[in-house]
Amino acid sequence: MPDVFDKCRTWHAYETVVTAGVYPYYRTLTDRTDATTVQIEGRQVLMAGSNDYLGLSTDPRVIAAATTAAHRFGTSCSGSRLLNGTLTLHEELEARLAAFLHREAAIVATTGYQTNLAIAALLGRDDVVFADRRNHASLVDAIRLGHAKHRRYRHNDMAHLKELLSTADPAAGRLIVTDGVFSMDGDLCDLPGIVELAQQHHARVMVDSAHDIGLLGVRGSGAAEHFRLEEQVDLVMATLSKCFGSLGGVLAGPAEVINYVRHRSRSILFSAAMPPANAAAALAALDIIRTEPERRHRTLDLAEALHNGLRALGFDTGRSVSPVVPVHIGDDMTCLRFWTELFAEGIFTNAVMPPAVPDGQAVIRASLSAQHTDSHLARTLDAFAAVGRRLDVIPPIPPSTYQPVSIARAT
Amino acid sequence: MPDVFDKCRTWHAYETVVTAGVYPYYRTLTDRTDATTVQIEGRQVLMAGSNDYLGLSTDPRVIAAATTAAHRFGTSCSGSRLLNGTLTLHEELEARLAAFLHREAAIVATTGYQTNLAIAALLGRDDVVFADRRNHASLVDAIRLGHAKHRRYRHNDMAHLKELLSTADPAAGRLIVTDGVFSMDGDLCDLPGIVELAQQHHARVMVDSAHDIGLLGVRGSGAAEHFRLEEQVDLVMATLSKCFGSLGGVLAGPAEVINYVRHRSRSILFSAAMPPANAAAALAALDIIRTEPERRHRTLDLAEALHNGLRALGFDTGRSVSPVVPVHIGDDMTCLRFWTELFAEGIFTNAVMPPAVPDGQAVIRASLSAQHTDSHLARTLDAFAAVGRRLDVIPPIPPSTYQPVSIARAT
Repeated sequence: MPDVFDKCRTWHAYETVVTAGVYPYYRTLTDRTDATTVQIEGRQVLMAGSNDYLGLSTDPRVIAAATTAAHRFGTSCSGSRLLNGTLTLHEELEARLAAFLHREAAIVATTGYQTNLAIAALLGRDDVVFADRRNHASLVDAIRLGHAKHRRYRHNDMAHLKELLSTADPAAGRLIVTDGVFSMDGDLCDLPGIVELAQQHHARVMVDSAHDIGLLGVRGSGAAEHFRLEEQVDLVMATLSKCFGSLGGVLAGPAEVINYVRHRSRSILFSAAMPPANAAAALAALDIIRTEPERRHRTLDLAEALHNGLRALGFDTGRSVSPVVPVHIGDDMTCLRFWTELFAEGIFTNAVMPPAVPDGQAVIRASLSAQHTDSHLARTLDAFAAVGRRLDVIPPIPPSTYQPVSIARAT
Repeated sequence: MPDVFDKCRTWHAYETVVTAGVYPYYRTLTDRTDATTVQIEGRQVLMAGSNDYLGLSTDPRVIAAATTAAHRFGTSCSGSRLLNGTLTLHEELEARLAAFLHREAAIVATTGYQTNLAIAALLGRDDVVFADRRNHASLVDAIRLGHAKHRRYRHNDMAHLKELLSTADPAAGRLIVTDGVFSMDGDLCDLPGIVELAQQHHARVMVDSAHDIGLLGVRGSGAAEHFRLEEQVDLVMATLSKCFGSLGGVLAGPAEVINYVRHRSRSILFSAAMPPANAAAALAALDIIRTEPERRHRTLDLAEALHNGLRALGFDTGRSVSPVVPVHIGDDMTCLRFWTELFAEGIFTNAVMPPAVPDGQAVIRASLSAQHTDSHLARTLDAFAAVGRRLDVIPPIPPSTYQPVSIARAT
């Protein structure tokens, strides 16, 4: 007889990887000093693979806000925002994020994933969503839950997007959805191109700023601000688990749209509200992001130095112009060995394998926070150099020239 | 031109409700004393509408565990469990929840909603899920994301379930999914009936114990234990945002199934890990649930007294045999007025309206925690009596007899 569990029994994807001693996932963080230094399985290593880009998750002010809220309101809201879980903290966070993002209104959801799922409420069978092929998985799931038609365009390919828009049902509502900074590639969306096509084809635009809020734009409010296209973008989504050192996400846009989402989104209605400590941590982080721009400048400077240090050694960091630094390795097993040897050298990174990236394009994803020192950067580069040469990923002698990266900076 | 936002502009569902001054949603909790007493919009009220059934979200031991973890590990994991967000705390929580639930293995996800979505990974186009029509919304969404066929059987109707099982494709993998305690009705699933049909029709069984973990069974491990059918249930899901006073959920079952979910579930792979404080709070709560059974006995005693006090007044609490006490009102506007007048009397409950319940079956959902006193119970009943008579929901003179509720207790 068929069994719904059969697929688990016949699935052995990681057995050879575990046997070869190069399994890079679910590695246990046993202790943590700060954003730069952690213990993994008891061994102290340099953390060069976190999304804590500003280092705020260990900031004493953020921790103090979280613990004060836990003492005052407890450790859980024990119910949905709708019925019994709305705190002053949530409302303050929403009002201040709306202002920060230059939007009429905002709603927070308990995870970033569920924030993106919330847009399912805005979609229906008659709508078409035009989505970059490299968008985050949560956006793909949102479109499925929203029963909308899903038209995926080749990554940042405006000609393809134009073709899809031109051939769509003229009676359909249209939404173009893109990541601001792409989570695994580190490149930016072509927002000017998207906005132009949206206007020509009467489409709304949503930007997922998970990896750029706190980093891009003069005020740090993300990709829309970076491109000076805030008014042309209809909806901004961002996470609070990366630069904000907390958990959850925010969806911001026109008041009537956000009000609709508040009352209709299943991922918000049918989920417990963000706990007090997490909301308070995000609020404290927003203060710091607003008042300490030097933090994001430091993160960007360090990212540029990491990119160019790696490129000078002969590594390829692809299209990235952001603190997401994907070091292209290619072959899966080489990538896993690379990750394992970096770890042995005391550097923790992320091995990103298919299907998160296309076949044969495995990368080591590295990122440093505002808290990392120049000496941390040097140690990271030294380890990459040693492992890269050992595994023949880079030449023994660095190339005489390389194409430097100019990080995406506010101008 | 059509606009994807049109639906927001033409949606006015709550305008009349707001105008009438009876809008019961997103009411703001401005302060909190403990599980029994809160300030809503500045006014002190008795909380009789929370899922904090054991009152653990304000337990000093749970708060201390949360704040200690925030100090030691920071306020965020800043990434997924897979890549960089696994802490010793998560592994300890998983091991201890697996033991508590008498399962080989367990995985926690960041919200209960995402825990249920995680089962999408176990499903495919060739699978059929047989689901109670009153199951939680997150289970409905999981089946859609899993691309499986969705066969819904009438609530607790074993004849209907049998019919659907008998007529399903014999080549399909089969999973029966049910809530343990139904979240809005408060009744229990017919687990003996489900298990018998599952065995006859080679189906797996999953129970969502969101509203019964911590309450039902001799050890408090939920519906499967209550029915003494732990071995016949294949997967148990439970939330950590209700009895556990935290956030997140757990899926527990055979090791190979959980290992598969860990590596394949999009709601786990593509979401930030549960933050340190939330994991630590859940661990502290598990200790209390294991060692202080008197708490759940108190919750059940109080629930029985609430049910029977309401019934003695002439209210109908439906099929419920649990701390979820749905007071049947019927008409939407009467229910909203009822909620508003209870709130004016200083009692906070939940107004549950269609589509969360069938049309014309609006309920006031009440629940008291282990922390509530007999005097809180008396105040709640007094307020229900006053409002019920004023709005003609109950007769001016109580009925001479009523059918008492026997709460579902461990035997």
